[in-house]
Amino acid sequence: MTDSEKVYDSVPATTVGYEYADDTTPPVIGEDPIIRPGTIVYDDVEVGDRFVTGHHALVREHTTIGDDVLVGSQVVIDGETTIGDGVSLQTGVYVPQETKIHDDVFVGPNTVLTNDPYPLRQDVPLDGPVLKDDVSIGANATILPSVTIGEGAFVAAGAIVTSDIPGETLAIGSPAEPYPLPPELEGGNDT
Amino acid sequence: MTDSEKVYDSVPATTVGYEYADDTTPPVIGEDPIIRPGTIVYDDVEVGDRFVTGHHALVREHTTIGDDVLVGSQVVIDGETTIGDGVSLQTGVYVPQETKIHDDVFVGPNTVLTNDPYPLRQDVPLDGPVLKDDVSIGANATILPSVTIGEGAFVAAGAIVTSDIPGETLAIGSPAEPYPLPPELEGGNDT
Amino acid sequence: MTDSEKVYDSVPATTVGYEYADDTTPPVIGEDPIIRPGTIVYDDVEVGDRFVTGHHALVREHTTIGDDVLVGSQVVIDGETTIGDGVSLQTGVYVPQETKIHDDVFVGPNTVLTNDPYPLRQDVPLDGPVLKDDVSIGANATILPSVTIGEGAFVAAGAIVTSDIPGETLAIGSPAEPYPLPPELEGGNDT
Repeated sequence: MTDSEKVYDSVPATTVGYEYADDTTPPVIGEDPIIRPGTIVYDDVEVGDRFVTGHHALVREHTTIGDDVLVGSQVVIDGETTIGDGVSLQTGVYVPQETKIHDDVFVGPNTVLTNDPYPLRQDVPLDGPVLKDDVSIGANATILPSVTIGEGAFVAAGAIVTSDIPGETLAIGSPAEPYPLPPELEGGNDT
Repeated sequence: MTDSEKVYDSVPATTVGYEYADDTTPPVIGEDPIIRPGTIVYDDVEVGDRFVTGHHALVREHTTIGDDVLVGSQVVIDGETTIGDGVSLQTGVYVPQETKIHDDVFVGPNTVLTNDPYPLRQDVPLDGPVLKDDVSIGANATILPSVTIGEGAFVAAGAIVTSDIPGETLAIGSPAEPYPLPPELEGGNDT
Repeated sequence: MTDSEKVYDSVPATTVGYEYADDTTPPVIGEDPIIRPGTIVYDDVEVGDRFVTGHHALVREHTTIGDDVLVGSQVVIDGETTIGDGVSLQTGVYVPQETKIHDDVFVGPNTVLTNDPYPLRQDVPLDGPVLKDDVSIGANATILPSVTIGEGAFVAAGAIVTSDIPGETLAIGSPAEPYPLPPELEGGNDT
């Protein structure tokens, strides 16, 4: 078929429980989820209550997610990951394996977390970042492997974070440097 | 089912008129659209003639779009937004609520517009950027909330735009600074 | 329909052979492919053996791909492109038309390649980058049109590459500058 001058009218599938291998276990999802069409949740995933997703998101195997979490459209959570309560992952965020996201964390659109310092050059264990409680990360930031972002820190849009960021600081630039939090960014995340 | 050694053969749904709530109104789309499979257009959207989309794009509610607009694959327009005539949004662009895009604007692949200056820290009104007529934005740029990019300005690839950019300038860097337009970028957008 | 409090359960279509126009030829795909649901492969595509894709990826027409290639979730290959053997394109990578990717290349998540130096300003031929053998590119990098990245070079995460990068160097920054490869990045890609 060709698509010229054609308007389709149907709703794409939402997949809750993608059997990625033999002997997998269906996902366990808490109360009152809203999982929008186009999104795929693998088997071997555990999610808390009030889970909300956009469209075309992907949650792979061995992911544990708390309560009141938003996974935006086109977010990819690549599995083997732990995510706390009250977390908001905006559109297009990438979360690699071996990432730890604590409670009340915000990650802005198209931000990329990474887990491999020497891709295809050395065979080291994959190790994603740790985002502590109340971290906010702006849009289109890049977080290098094994980095810890401290409690209440705020990472500016577009920053490239190559080393640990202390809690309650504002990280800006490439490579990102920590500065004192301005008053309007103090007080942690209100979710 | 598992996917090992399997080749599927079918065409994903295209959704024109996603009823995101009760009492919504089907979208109004002009003449000769090409809306490619995997794309979702919500109810309460108005689009002009010759609308073209890629695959897996998303256009949410309360979006108004003019004639001759291209919405590339995996673009997300998050709703509550106005887009003019002759606009081209390349693959993976993110357009948040409360954005205003005027006529003959080009936005390069994976560029992110934003609308929240203090995510989860303060409860301020969301306010996206304004892109005036004939603006071009390169790939993977980041545009901060409430920024106005003046008529005919050109934003370089990867720039992080934190404040207003005058018309007919070239914005480069992080934070982006305006420079005179080189001759090869003068004359506005020819769509 | 509305999506509140609803959990769907089905598997989205995988499309192998999208007839984008009249008189197209179905794709030719080698042995043992794994093409995951949500992915679309156009007609007029040739792929080698052991092709693996994630979900919601897109491979457009007139693309030639070698053996042992991974196309991650939400990757877009926009057609008119040649990709060698042993290439890994991670989640969300964008590959424009007229790109040439040689063997054993790694491209990190959300990295953007580009092919148009003056979008909507001048009508010049599209010309994407050339990535030579054993190139690795980190996450969220931006590669400008017509750039050649030399054999064995490593581009750091978030770099903006505006001119050619010599082989066996480490490119960092914006605009990216080449530095000597540190010992842990020597030796080419082991795929």
